[in-house]
Amino acid sequence: MEVKIVEVGLRDGLQNEAVILPTDAKKILVKKLIAAGVRDIEVTSFVHPKWVPQLADAEQLASELPSNAAVVYRALVPNRQGLARALETKVDEFAVFMSASEAHNRKNINKSIAETYPVLEEVTKLAKQQGKKVRGYVSTVFGCPYEGDVDISQVAKICERLFAMGVYEISLGDTIGVATPNDVKKVLKALLSQFPAETLAGHFHDTRGTGLVNAYVALELGITTLDTSFGGMGGCPYAPGAAGNLATEDLVYTLERMGVKTGIDLERLCDVSLTAQRILGKALPSKVLKSYVGSKKRKS
Amino acid sequence: MEVKIVEVGLRDGLQNEAVILPTDAKKILVKKLIAAGVRDIEVTSFVHPKWVPQLADAEQLASELPSNAAVVYRALVPNRQGLARALETKVDEFAVFMSASEAHNRKNINKSIAETYPVLEEVTKLAKQQGKKVRGYVSTVFGCPYEGDVDISQVAKICERLFAMGVYEISLGDTIGVATPNDVKKVLKALLSQFPAETLAGHFHDTRGTGLVNAYVALELGITTLDTSFGGMGGCPYAPGAAGNLATEDLVYTLERMGVKTGIDLERLCDVSLTAQRILGKALPSKVLKSYVGSKKRKS
Repeated sequence: MEVKIVEVGLRDGLQNEAVILPTDAKKILVKKLIAAGVRDIEVTSFVHPKWVPQLADAEQLASELPSNAAVVYRALVPNRQGLARALETKVDEFAVFMSASEAHNRKNINKSIAETYPVLEEVTKLAKQQGKKVRGYVSTVFGCPYEGDVDISQVAKICERLFAMGVYEISLGDTIGVATPNDVKKVLKALLSQFPAETLAGHFHDTRGTGLVNAYVALELGITTLDTSFGGMGGCPYAPGAAGNLATEDLVYTLERMGVKTGIDLERLCDVSLTAQRILGKALPSKVLKSYVGSKKRKS
Repeated sequence: MEVKIVEVGLRDGLQNEAVILPTDAKKILVKKLIAAGVRDIEVTSFVHPKWVPQLADAEQLASELPSNAAVVYRALVPNRQGLARALETKVDEFAVFMSASEAHNRKNINKSIAETYPVLEEVTKLAKQQGKKVRGYVSTVFGCPYEGDVDISQVAKICERLFAMGVYEISLGDTIGVATPNDVKKVLKALLSQFPAETLAGHFHDTRGTGLVNAYVALELGITTLDTSFGGMGGCPYAPGAAGNLATEDLVYTLERMGVKTGIDLERLCDVSLTAQRILGKALPSKVLKSYVGSKKRKS
């Protein structure tokens, strides 16, 4: 069994951190991630800089990425303007995004779900015309900060629309980290009755410490692509101080010990997060990282 | 389905914290835990005070516990001297302990495994003569900081000996938090072929973030007793700064959302941990706790 880890720390992680990283610091982190064996790196989002100042350097960063045929650089594109900017850079693959709940979609992209479809459809079509693959992100699949529970049939309908547009994979986001194993089972079993496992990815936030168990349940159900963030970087805009994405380190440790190859060197990955900690001036939540730092302290 | 949560924060948590809590502070925490609905509370250990100064007030604390027929107070007893001290207090139930690995047993209790058996046998016999139940703890079941992997047949042999002495339940400790789901499955499947599920408990440290997923796997295999620590208090002597036990909050959140009743009120439990944070002067690792604090901050 092989698991594809999509490293989203530089996008989903950083956009939820208070500190704005200089482009050069991001480039150092990209290089270190590659040296650690990470091959799928979501580097930024081409949203308007005023919405996400942490990613305002999208063009510069994405233009100055180290060339490496083995690495897939990914970026979010909200609309045709964003796509046009992204197409001028070294980004290999794009992602469109929307929410499963009406209220979160409006807060996040200022449109109703119905108004969002044609925008994503246009982006997907244009990107594919350029020979680029497009991923779809669906947020709030397991719960919405405004609406609470989200109807699975609504999620399924959105997935249908996105696949019909031509996205090759949909990442199912537990945006606020409320899901537990039963939620993951319920949603995935419903979606897997319609869509093949290889077209779905799990994106679990660790707000309540359930990221790893949810990833495990997804793997048990046949999902083999998971989104994580080095150091567990990020946070939750709905609970300041809470944890961010599932930490890449915690997933890699677990998978490798279970005999699942990830291609990622855990020590080198921890060193990426240590660098990020120094730049951000704060401890990152990954527990494997803390344990790594602690065991080094003890030895020295 | 019901799950019994054994709250070990005041013993396993505190013995791994640098700060020594005054007895009065511990008594406040006990009262608050009871108010939150916690019913099984391991309050201390009657080891010699010089080994664990954090628990040097064992007699005083255990004598001054609030009387409550619904609550089971538990304490560790290393030998007949410890038991004699404990029998003078309000402790309802005792626990004997040893390690599954020879090296950890020697480091921890300064005896070989063979030399340990008669000591535990004597304690168990004497406690039972007083009408007290005795639990057994086996440490390093899933890995030893000195020996690495631990043979499952060795664990099974120790369990056999402990059950033969008269312990009613054995808590299987992932003392250094190395286990992943496959380890838990392998060990538990082997033990469950010999011993009924209701005689085994899971004690998972969250050193590498795997506490919750391991608890989940144990529950799936029929284990219904789990040891946790409020706030995730504690740490790992082999990796200073690393996380402690699986946090009670994180387990309670997950179980309750999955429809499993724990009898514990999550908000009140978080308030216990907030009190502990103030007394200890440090943030505790529970992610549910951080999310609770964050959502309160956002509202205020």
